[in-house]
Amino acid sequence: MAEQHEKLDKQIKEKMLIDALENGKIDSFRDEFMEMHPYDQAKFFGQLEEELRAKVYHYLSPEEMAALFENLKSEEEEYGDLLSEMNPAYAADMLSEMYADDAVDVLNELDKEQVVSYLTIMDKEAAAEIKELLHYEEYTAGSIMTTEYVAIAANQTVRSAMYILKNEAPEAEIIYYLFVVNDEKKLVGVISLRDLIVADDDTMIHEIMSERVVSVSVSEDQEEVARKMRDYDFLAMPVIDFQNHLMGIITIDDIVDVMQEEASEDYSKLAGVPDMDHGDKGALSAAKKRLPWLVILLFLGMFTASLIGRFEETLNQKAILAVFMPLIAGMAGNTGTQALAVVVRGIATGDLKTESKWKLIAKEGSTGLLIGLSCGVLVTLVVYFWQDDFYLGLLVGAAIIATLFVATLAGSLIPLLMHKMNIDPAVASGPFITTINDIISVLIYFGMATLFISYLK
Amino acid sequence: MAEQHEKLDKQIKEKMLIDALENGKIDSFRDEFMEMHPYDQAKFFGQLEEELRAKVYHYLSPEEMAALFENLKSEEEEYGDLLSEMNPAYAADMLSEMYADDAVDVLNELDKEQVVSYLTIMDKEAAAEIKELLHYEEYTAGSIMTTEYVAIAANQTVRSAMYILKNEAPEAEIIYYLFVVNDEKKLVGVISLRDLIVADDDTMIHEIMSERVVSVSVSEDQEEVARKMRDYDFLAMPVIDFQNHLMGIITIDDIVDVMQEEASEDYSKLAGVPDMDHGDKGALSAAKKRLPWLVILLFLGMFTASLIGRFEETLNQKAILAVFMPLIAGMAGNTGTQALAVVVRGIATGDLKTESKWKLIAKEGSTGLLIGLSCGVLVTLVVYFWQDDFYLGLLVGAAIIATLFVATLAGSLIPLLMHKMNIDPAVASGPFITTINDIISVLIYFGMATLFISYLK
Repeated sequence: MAEQHEKLDKQIKEKMLIDALENGKIDSFRDEFMEMHPYDQAKFFGQLEEELRAKVYHYLSPEEMAALFENLKSEEEEYGDLLSEMNPAYAADMLSEMYADDAVDVLNELDKEQVVSYLTIMDKEAAAEIKELLHYEEYTAGSIMTTEYVAIAANQTVRSAMYILKNEAPEAEIIYYLFVVNDEKKLVGVISLRDLIVADDDTMIHEIMSERVVSVSVSEDQEEVARKMRDYDFLAMPVIDFQNHLMGIITIDDIVDVMQEEASEDYSKLAGVPDMDHGDKGALSAAKKRLPWLVILLFLGMFTASLIGRFEETLNQKAILAVFMPLIAGMAGNTGTQALAVVVRGIATGDLKTESKWKLIAKEGSTGLLIGLSCGVLVTLVVYFWQDDFYLGLLVGAAIIATLFVATLAGSLIPLLMHKMNIDPAVASGPFITTINDIISVLIYFGMATLFISYLK
Repeated sequence: MAEQHEKLDKQIKEKMLIDALENGKIDSFRDEFMEMHPYDQAKFFGQLEEELRAKVYHYLSPEEMAALFENLKSEEEEYGDLLSEMNPAYAADMLSEMYADDAVDVLNELDKEQVVSYLTIMDKEAAAEIKELLHYEEYTAGSIMTTEYVAIAANQTVRSAMYILKNEAPEAEIIYYLFVVNDEKKLVGVISLRDLIVADDDTMIHEIMSERVVSVSVSEDQEEVARKMRDYDFLAMPVIDFQNHLMGIITIDDIVDVMQEEASEDYSKLAGVPDMDHGDKGALSAAKKRLPWLVILLFLGMFTASLIGRFEETLNQKAILAVFMPLIAGMAGNTGTQALAVVVRGIATGDLKTESKWKLIAKEGSTGLLIGLSCGVLVTLVVYFWQDDFYLGLLVGAAIIATLFVATLAGSLIPLLMHKMNIDPAVASGPFITTINDIISVLIYFGMATLFISYLK
């Protein structure tokens, strides 16, 4: 009930806003719009036609537009279109007003030329900050950090630190940690706003600051940064260069986005669909994304088929053998995917770091053997009673044992090897492992069948 | 280099700490240990033997132990063991000192009797808070919220609000938002500490507070809460009951954990390995976790085999048909998994909410058809040139087209139906869809082959 009420409320509000835009009622638009959270503003803005968007640019200051723009979670390629709709000076002003890290996200989606032209007409100070951030490689700490933090000195009082804080609060992206630097801008300590507020006004910062600062280096992988922030429950984390200079900070809201991205990525790859989250406009673009993997798998499947072709003689003698092929291949695929997922996830969460690789392989091998034995015995019995052919049961059961053992090993070894060779192990998707295991299972099953065909009824 | 240096440093420090514990040097232990971040303290503590843990309980106050305990991310079942090692009064004191939501996490893992006994000897106020939180169902907003927030009134000045804040800061879990409530404890506004600090001391709170508060209800699903906090970039979110009373707040650190959990869960389920993250001690426990799914799939596979058995006559006439079976089944499994993953992820991220179900099904159907046509034509050509049998190529190609179309539809329909029936769609794992699609592909391929066998060479 409450939810439906809320929904209706929202629809009425949106109707009013659109009405105000269409009829040029700037005051009633602003009265309503400026009360909204920037995220809701962005969602509303995202639904508008170009004609109405043009009015919004007129009704909002560049600063107000900046807050909205920071919350746009649209397809990245649209940033450029939106900017080119605006008056260039307005766009440049808006970019200057945005938090530097968000502005960098926008600029990263534009052509080199466009970036240069905006940076030229932008506020000099903001442009300098942004230029510095643009240098860092994607997916590193440097690429997601911001330079809008509050820095203080160790030899000042709490009172004077609070004074600095009050002045810088409107500009800083997060004010809940203050970073203590020395004359050379090297990071020497950190203090939370909580500790600052509780402390006596005349206390010196160096008395209450924490000197053991957990920080990350500019070149560190963003996934590693996310792991650290999650472990330590930080709201922001300082980023330093190799000489301990404070370069910027990373805030928790960006880390939340990183975590979401990385989780989606691992998931997409396990399913063999790259870039799942960048919404498909239609069936054609969806098909285009899924086809590349499928075509590779198709050729691998053809290879499997040609392997089976070599056993045509065996199949001609005993067509019943074909009946169990999908069962064996399917089981191999399933166990392989399970082992793959455990290892890929272990690498992603860092849990595998502490464990030795050999121990892991031994463990997965034993797991595969246990699984193989359980399923193998079960299959032997079922096939024996169903087909009334003990040796056929034994053959299928033995093939299952061998196949599941090898498939589990392959599922864990392949991502480990890729990780070792600095390839993202998540690339070895479920479908890939499944297809590899198809090949393995065909070889094992038909190999065994050809050897022991004389025992079958 | 820097990293290795850091690692060595850590090892030396740990060695020192263990040495201090073993030789009962309480002062040098505390000097070093209290400088560490609670997360590092917890990691160190987690490696100790029972004998040394007993010393830690003696060397740390219940309050100090509480900070460490809040950072323990060990297997949940161990909480009980650790508590029972402590003196009951010490354990109860420690639980009182913990943030209420973390204490609830610990108590949730104990027997009913143990919970009652600790609550009886605990600090009365803390016990009352915890009792209230214990009521909420798992995975709801209520179960992850805390009651340690800062509440102020609308008709007070910024100065008096800051005074309240200073007093409550040491107890509150987060102080960066202040929640404004009326006499009936109903939530009427929110103000960030940033706005409070920037404001003039004599300003009234109602002048600067935001009245449009984004909140969640106590019974809301934690995944939905995470989605809202991510969208709005909040550090904390108020939780209300249906009459708008402020019941507690949820902090971003808990949301980060929720996101991690939910992502792991979706990933595990796609791979058909439940509970992947609750570490396996050995191969036996790993095998136990993976077997249930495999056995179900084994019987489904047997069913597939019995279906193929019905086409034995066809196979006896044309053994070559068996050669392409794993290819077709494999491709069906792969496309089905892709479609499944897209739909499950769409449901999880909420992206699918806005889209109509029928539109989605139509889109997936078209995608399946496009993928099927592309792969089908390719297969027809390859098989034709390889086997020099045009009709065989046509048969395999047509089977691929039909199979991939149906498999894509099945991959998207099954999770949608499950979602409709309030079953978690992620339960329809990749292996499950793959096996279902094995059955579909066998029926289509051999059905077609039986009909058109007279055309084959």
